[in-house]
Amino acid sequence: MTQVWNFSAGPAMLPREVLQQAATEMLDWHGSGMSVMEMSHRGPQFMQILQEALDDFRDLMQVPQTHKILFMQGGAIGQNAIVPLNLMNGFESAAFVKNGSWSSKTIKEFARYGRADVVAEAREIKDASGLRPVNTYVPTIAPGSIAAGSAYLHYCGNETIDGVEFRQAPDMAALGAAQVPLVCDASSNILSRPMDVAAHAIIYGGAQKNIGPAGLTFVIIREDMLDRARSDCPSAFSYRQVYDNHSMYNTPPTYSIYIAGLVFKWLKAQGGVAAMAEVNRRKAQLLYDTIDGSGLYVNRVRPSDRSLMNVPFMLREDALNAEFLSLAQERNLLQLKGHKSVGGMRASIYNAMPMEGVEALVDFMLTFEKERA
Amino acid sequence: MTQVWNFSAGPAMLPREVLQQAATEMLDWHGSGMSVMEMSHRGPQFMQILQEALDDFRDLMQVPQTHKILFMQGGAIGQNAIVPLNLMNGFESAAFVKNGSWSSKTIKEFARYGRADVVAEAREIKDASGLRPVNTYVPTIAPGSIAAGSAYLHYCGNETIDGVEFRQAPDMAALGAAQVPLVCDASSNILSRPMDVAAHAIIYGGAQKNIGPAGLTFVIIREDMLDRARSDCPSAFSYRQVYDNHSMYNTPPTYSIYIAGLVFKWLKAQGGVAAMAEVNRRKAQLLYDTIDGSGLYVNRVRPSDRSLMNVPFMLREDALNAEFLSLAQERNLLQLKGHKSVGGMRASIYNAMPMEGVEALVDFMLTFEKERA
Repeated sequence: MTQVWNFSAGPAMLPREVLQQAATEMLDWHGSGMSVMEMSHRGPQFMQILQEALDDFRDLMQVPQTHKILFMQGGAIGQNAIVPLNLMNGFESAAFVKNGSWSSKTIKEFARYGRADVVAEAREIKDASGLRPVNTYVPTIAPGSIAAGSAYLHYCGNETIDGVEFRQAPDMAALGAAQVPLVCDASSNILSRPMDVAAHAIIYGGAQKNIGPAGLTFVIIREDMLDRARSDCPSAFSYRQVYDNHSMYNTPPTYSIYIAGLVFKWLKAQGGVAAMAEVNRRKAQLLYDTIDGSGLYVNRVRPSDRSLMNVPFMLREDALNAEFLSLAQERNLLQLKGHKSVGGMRASIYNAMPMEGVEALVDFMLTFEKERA
Repeated sequence: MTQVWNFSAGPAMLPREVLQQAATEMLDWHGSGMSVMEMSHRGPQFMQILQEALDDFRDLMQVPQTHKILFMQGGAIGQNAIVPLNLMNGFESAAFVKNGSWSSKTIKEFARYGRADVVAEAREIKDASGLRPVNTYVPTIAPGSIAAGSAYLHYCGNETIDGVEFRQAPDMAALGAAQVPLVCDASSNILSRPMDVAAHAIIYGGAQKNIGPAGLTFVIIREDMLDRARSDCPSAFSYRQVYDNHSMYNTPPTYSIYIAGLVFKWLKAQGGVAAMAEVNRRKAQLLYDTIDGSGLYVNRVRPSDRSLMNVPFMLREDALNAEFLSLAQERNLLQLKGHKSVGGMRASIYNAMPMEGVEALVDFMLTFEKERA
């Protein structure tokens, strides 16, 4: 088969070893005579698969015992409603950092549940380049700006469209808001590097970038957040119900959990999250160095805030975009077109993208620029 | 590999041909170099997979053009909230048929959104057998009992735990409620036989019984039902949003849709839903005839209301249950234990269970009874 390098922002590449194992086990998981897809979610085989996935995820992210792990459905966009439905009981407002498309969507959805205090906002730059304005940095939260009565502070850890990533979680104590729970949408950088889970009340995300198939949502939640639900929170989306029923209040997406479990085991075999972080750092650096050293490609994100997962770049001559994409495709470099809201290109380089794929892209970028110089 | 017959109530058996094709295509779908799991949901390959799945589902169920098909997440339990969130704008009540666990759950969840009028309710029988009381029939809706101002009438087409199935949808005109939209939870009998889709405003269900992997929800919806949402309906669960975004308001469960698509093509190759209905009728009849002709096994559901998908039966001597299950397992007859709320046994015989599997079960049941006579 053809070796392609798939730079999709998600669903995205999966480790080949994982797909090979899934193919081998498709008709007969461990001599059970069944595909994992066919197993009762309450049978002993799937219960084992689920428990191992939960345990391995906990190990990899070093989730402390104060925090529970839930598997849900509906993605991060579902959580935009599910988080406030579960946390806003008795609160009038929550605080938000706004620095891109995803955090903006979160804030917009929140309006049904209370007052959104935007405590830090990135302004899109409009510079002399003539390029489309984009979000380019993580805005600073001013100490004291988070109201003491806020239900929580929400931030999107990595804005996939703009390629802007928080290197560290907001320091709630330093911001004078130690008691305000911190909530993170980590859809696109979960497992890409160690995170301070204990500093968060909730870390959630869709699985389809760094974990596994689309249709699985993870929620890492501190135990005291299980009991703050509004009375209108649907049972299926109640963290308490989901937790009390071991993520089986409704039938869980069993096959997606199985694939996630295989990915977790693959990550452990690679040396875990710290080892992945080092590979991810080198992959991103090669790509950003190539862009910064070029006269054709440009990325305007503040270097300290550049995403290690999603690397957007523009061509200084927009007219070359179509040719770039077409020639890239010929070289089996796929899904490089930027999000329609910002244009240009975007290379998503999640855990499953090896250095070899980034090198193939860089090689092509250099050749393309040289031939047009 | 061992041939097992998996009688799980769901997730459940899938056609072997479907699993074989999925295994073959796991690393490389149609020469794309990608697994379907890795594809961008907005790329041309997945768009084709999605469209074919929608078209084939429409063909199989003969869905009229007045009705749209949505793919969502969260299962039927999610829909217990999502249906009223989408339909209750401007209404105070909805009407319900209550005849088992699933319809009872639907009614309970509805309480957040309005007054539930139970217009027909089955009473659990407590007979002289000494067996646990169970639901045994589809209750009759009295003409005129559905309030004209009801937002909708809801029924669960097949109660999987009790094995009670509506043979036909309630006739709303005959009930004097022609204008009240009819909503059906068809999780466990969709695609098992032809249904009068046009008589319904909404038919929804989880995919994990007759369609494919858990984590996919289908909603067949008449167009005028897209715009009756309450203002507190979350965007991710808004039928209008999901429809306007071609079931991609959030990232859809792409791999589950792919498997569902393979199942749809398999069903067409079997002759479609009418042909499956005939096989399903024969499978169920063999099993019910065996039970009715036995002195050991008993099913108390009214014959005209017996489910063709889920066949629960008790052993007249409860003490034999454990031995029955253990010997069945030795013969690779799996997942026959009844739901914990009713006990006994249950054989779920969805589309993917061939007659051969039912024959193997019947053979075992006859032998087991004979040896204990």
